[in-house]
Amino acid sequence: MSTPSEAMPATPAGPDNVSENTSAATATGASSAVEQRLAELGLTLPDVAAPVAAYVPAVISGNHVYTSGQLPFINGKLEATGKVSAGAAGAADESTVSPEDAKAYAAVCAVNALAAVKSVIGDLDRITRIVKVVGFVSSDPSFTGQPGVINGASELLGQVLGDAGQHARSAVGVSVLPLDSPVEVELIAEFA
Amino acid sequence: MSTPSEAMPATPAGPDNVSENTSAATATGASSAVEQRLAELGLTLPDVAAPVAAYVPAVISGNHVYTSGQLPFINGKLEATGKVSAGAAGAADESTVSPEDAKAYAAVCAVNALAAVKSVIGDLDRITRIVKVVGFVSSDPSFTGQPGVINGASELLGQVLGDAGQHARSAVGVSVLPLDSPVEVELIAEFA
Amino acid sequence: MSTPSEAMPATPAGPDNVSENTSAATATGASSAVEQRLAELGLTLPDVAAPVAAYVPAVISGNHVYTSGQLPFINGKLEATGKVSAGAAGAADESTVSPEDAKAYAAVCAVNALAAVKSVIGDLDRITRIVKVVGFVSSDPSFTGQPGVINGASELLGQVLGDAGQHARSAVGVSVLPLDSPVEVELIAEFA
Repeated sequence: MSTPSEAMPATPAGPDNVSENTSAATATGASSAVEQRLAELGLTLPDVAAPVAAYVPAVISGNHVYTSGQLPFINGKLEATGKVSAGAAGAADESTVSPEDAKAYAAVCAVNALAAVKSVIGDLDRITRIVKVVGFVSSDPSFTGQPGVINGASELLGQVLGDAGQHARSAVGVSVLPLDSPVEVELIAEFA
Repeated sequence: MSTPSEAMPATPAGPDNVSENTSAATATGASSAVEQRLAELGLTLPDVAAPVAAYVPAVISGNHVYTSGQLPFINGKLEATGKVSAGAAGAADESTVSPEDAKAYAAVCAVNALAAVKSVIGDLDRITRIVKVVGFVSSDPSFTGQPGVINGASELLGQVLGDAGQHARSAVGVSVLPLDSPVEVELIAEFA
Repeated sequence: MSTPSEAMPATPAGPDNVSENTSAATATGASSAVEQRLAELGLTLPDVAAPVAAYVPAVISGNHVYTSGQLPFINGKLEATGKVSAGAAGAADESTVSPEDAKAYAAVCAVNALAAVKSVIGDLDRITRIVKVVGFVSSDPSFTGQPGVINGASELLGQVLGDAGQHARSAVGVSVLPLDSPVEVELIAEFA
């Protein structure tokens, strides 16, 4: 089970691809208060595999963590692809994704972003603030509900982090995302 | 009068939605040197309403403020919607926005971003540098003049902040923005 | 020879346009270890011209440098324009750019970003970490290989900076970029 970011699902990375920062990923259990709240929501953090390129899931600089853009991988796979469209309700058009489904996928992106943060700081209870979230929504040119989609990520962060989860945010519609993902989310977290 | 960011225009937020950081919004008057320069340009800072979601107009981290993506709301409304197109001069095509108009809206975004910054630091004269601006332009696929549009924001910041307003910047064209806004601007400000 | 960022190619800037930060651009030679590795790859840093607007190629804040969005200018010109398409192999369709070519242009963006960083810190050996890279790919709506394109930038940074070049990253597809550039890259660097 892996959580690649916007790269292709990663195969186990060789020594050259592993940042020293990712070595903390296996150092802690799932017993933090943040992870307990995730568990109450029925969610668990996935493992994080280093992308197969000269970039990593997250980087520490000072007391901030910058994550890579996160796709809504579940067990290493995208459950849906395509552009988000307001007309995409139900299973009528398999090439588009409904706003409701996209909101749920944005929450998955946020969980994967927390996993990326944990991979470099070891314990999510060290997060003092989610500073910034940027959400990219692969959008049909007529779809203008990007804020509602990215609320999936914002609300998840608020549920599991409380006041520390309240962040500044930008949501934009883009023409297409890696692997035809409907949504991609990156964030900056402050930690102590 | 409110300045929502990329969310829907906000209704008065309940206690759960108000960050402690936004409480400074009403603590100061409009008498800073920066606001005097805004006034000389015929501009006043709008009030800032907290978006109705688990995110806030701006967040302080260390000596930086990160703003949410700002839409060109004036008195809580978008005066124009649609994509920016080089062919959109005058009132010929109501579904597109001219580059000249979009440049003016980008300046409105910048004013709203300053209001968001003030809501968390209280006094715009504390700004020591605008570090970074990212401008998203909802673009007809053939429109390539994004820098000229975002100059509306950059020039406004230079006019009211002087040397402290000179920033690094990215301008990109996107397929669509929240509420069909023609432009969205976010920024990072350093303050003392 | 100049390296404008996402603005139009710059003419020599007047005093009003030159940040104090850019004055370091001519203060150092090309003899750093990083530049030696660039030379081994057959690459040299271009000079950096200040964009003709109220923004600058790069800004220092604390121990970070934020660059403006970099286009793949070579000697002040874009060698190709248009959207990246998986079907664009060879010279069949002059209006699109192949993923392979776009990857090479992303590397040029990264070199230009390093030049922008050098313009404010003087010596690239001061870089302790590339913290974050965001890559925008002007994409045909059916093209989903943005990570492979931005790998051009990521791999270049790894080649010349080693472990310090491993960064968090987002890659997104956008509808159009300034001057119809196929790719635009911005980054945040930590330095000592």
